[in-house]
Amino acid sequence: MGRASDRRSVLRIDLSAPDRDAPAAVRRPDTLAGEEPLEIRVGRAGQARRPLAVTMRTPGDELDLAIGFLLTEGLIRSARDVSTAQLCAGDNAPNTYNVVDVVLADGVPEPETDPARAFYTTSSCGVCGKASIDAVRTRSPYDVATDRVELAATDLARLPDRLRAAQRTFERTGGLHAAGLFSTGGELVVAREDVGRHNAVDKVIGWAARQERLPLTGHVLMVSGRASFELTQKAWMAGIPVLAAVSAPSTLAAELAGEAGMTLVGFLRGQTMNVYTGAERVTC
Amino acid sequence: MGRASDRRSVLRIDLSAPDRDAPAAVRRPDTLAGEEPLEIRVGRAGQARRPLAVTMRTPGDELDLAIGFLLTEGLIRSARDVSTAQLCAGDNAPNTYNVVDVVLADGVPEPETDPARAFYTTSSCGVCGKASIDAVRTRSPYDVATDRVELAATDLARLPDRLRAAQRTFERTGGLHAAGLFSTGGELVVAREDVGRHNAVDKVIGWAARQERLPLTGHVLMVSGRASFELTQKAWMAGIPVLAAVSAPSTLAAELAGEAGMTLVGFLRGQTMNVYTGAERVTC
Repeated sequence: MGRASDRRSVLRIDLSAPDRDAPAAVRRPDTLAGEEPLEIRVGRAGQARRPLAVTMRTPGDELDLAIGFLLTEGLIRSARDVSTAQLCAGDNAPNTYNVVDVVLADGVPEPETDPARAFYTTSSCGVCGKASIDAVRTRSPYDVATDRVELAATDLARLPDRLRAAQRTFERTGGLHAAGLFSTGGELVVAREDVGRHNAVDKVIGWAARQERLPLTGHVLMVSGRASFELTQKAWMAGIPVLAAVSAPSTLAAELAGEAGMTLVGFLRGQTMNVYTGAERVTC
Repeated sequence: MGRASDRRSVLRIDLSAPDRDAPAAVRRPDTLAGEEPLEIRVGRAGQARRPLAVTMRTPGDELDLAIGFLLTEGLIRSARDVSTAQLCAGDNAPNTYNVVDVVLADGVPEPETDPARAFYTTSSCGVCGKASIDAVRTRSPYDVATDRVELAATDLARLPDRLRAAQRTFERTGGLHAAGLFSTGGELVVAREDVGRHNAVDKVIGWAARQERLPLTGHVLMVSGRASFELTQKAWMAGIPVLAAVSAPSTLAAELAGEAGMTLVGFLRGQTMNVYTGAERVTC
């Protein structure tokens, strides 16, 4: 199985070295964030499982990732919709464990893969932003708009440092996105890291689903980077009323958050933040 | 058609405001990075085009993006493999232009979409990292290992500022990834921005392909974020010998760059950088 990080020898160049006698370039070890493909296969007991998706991810928490992916894509509604999920070796790779084999519970429909479209149909396939938003609204089982949670801006301002403190691999590699689930009071519930920000979120939501904590009423999802349409969609699918990001949201993320009645906070850094939607939940 | 950016009213909260009389929260306009889905359809003249992929992208340079995507995925080898490419409205969205319709030239094989796998087969589908690297090696038409270009570390250190200077939308939104193509001497050839870093790279490579500049021998591709497997693959598919990133590379990016004989530079910030592979091209 791959590792969350690995070490390599690198040439470190420092052009600002004040001492002319000191070498500007030195060989030294460096730790890199792990990246490996993961294939998610889905099917019924006693039948061959079909590959559904491949994602480039950081090894670790594969079952959470697979369950989170299926859930935030609307293919299952809870972890109970999965009979078994296990990590196994791929056909071509006897020494790696880069396949998650998911057996759906009785009565759960298999994912619709439209052969005419030749690819797995995600919520992005409405092809205009509005159609994509409509597709998510249709599929989300939770009404986050009615979640009356209130958050103090001072509590929100503490989340980035708490998320960073939980990032074990980032400290060593500087190369991972993080997602953290927080309670209303700002306490960290769970944090996950990944080279793909969507994977970090799927790992968090999959963990919560396997703990039977969905919907995540009254919780805040904090992400280390930007807030995209995809991350907003995943938060909504898990019933999370507040999404906070260190960096900027996109237009479609803000539109989707507005449609969902979700609170979207961006540029949450130091003592400042921008509230894009759902500002009534934030108290100053 | 969607826009590269759009304005929204946001609630700006500043908890550090020294003046107790000044409101900590004010309504003000903010500019967000545009995000819309783009569907790429491929087929032959006189036949129905089949949807191949959907990507969430920032509107603009759609034909470059489509050509760059097809090229870096190994589906075409040059822009001449495309007979026509045009932007059109999607089926459900008469007022948006979120579909690129690509007609392949005679003799160019249609993309293989394996119905049994139910999704478009990318190079990640080897499912172990090694198989993925092998798949890219098989498909790249260019041997970048033999590219003898040399770069001064002082020239490399100038690239981040030059790329940032070319980022028009980032200045307004803080929300876009950038990719820039530079000559050996550090002159900017072309820069593109996108909410998806892979799209920014595809837009750059698609532009170069349509200018019949491939392979991009002696060039440097600079990206604003991290260096993933996917970005390294795209650089190799365009014959680019040097990939430089502001942030960290992943393990698989470094492995692929090493296999390709490509120079991979990470943490290129200020006066310092790490050279992960191909250090013989960098002179101090």
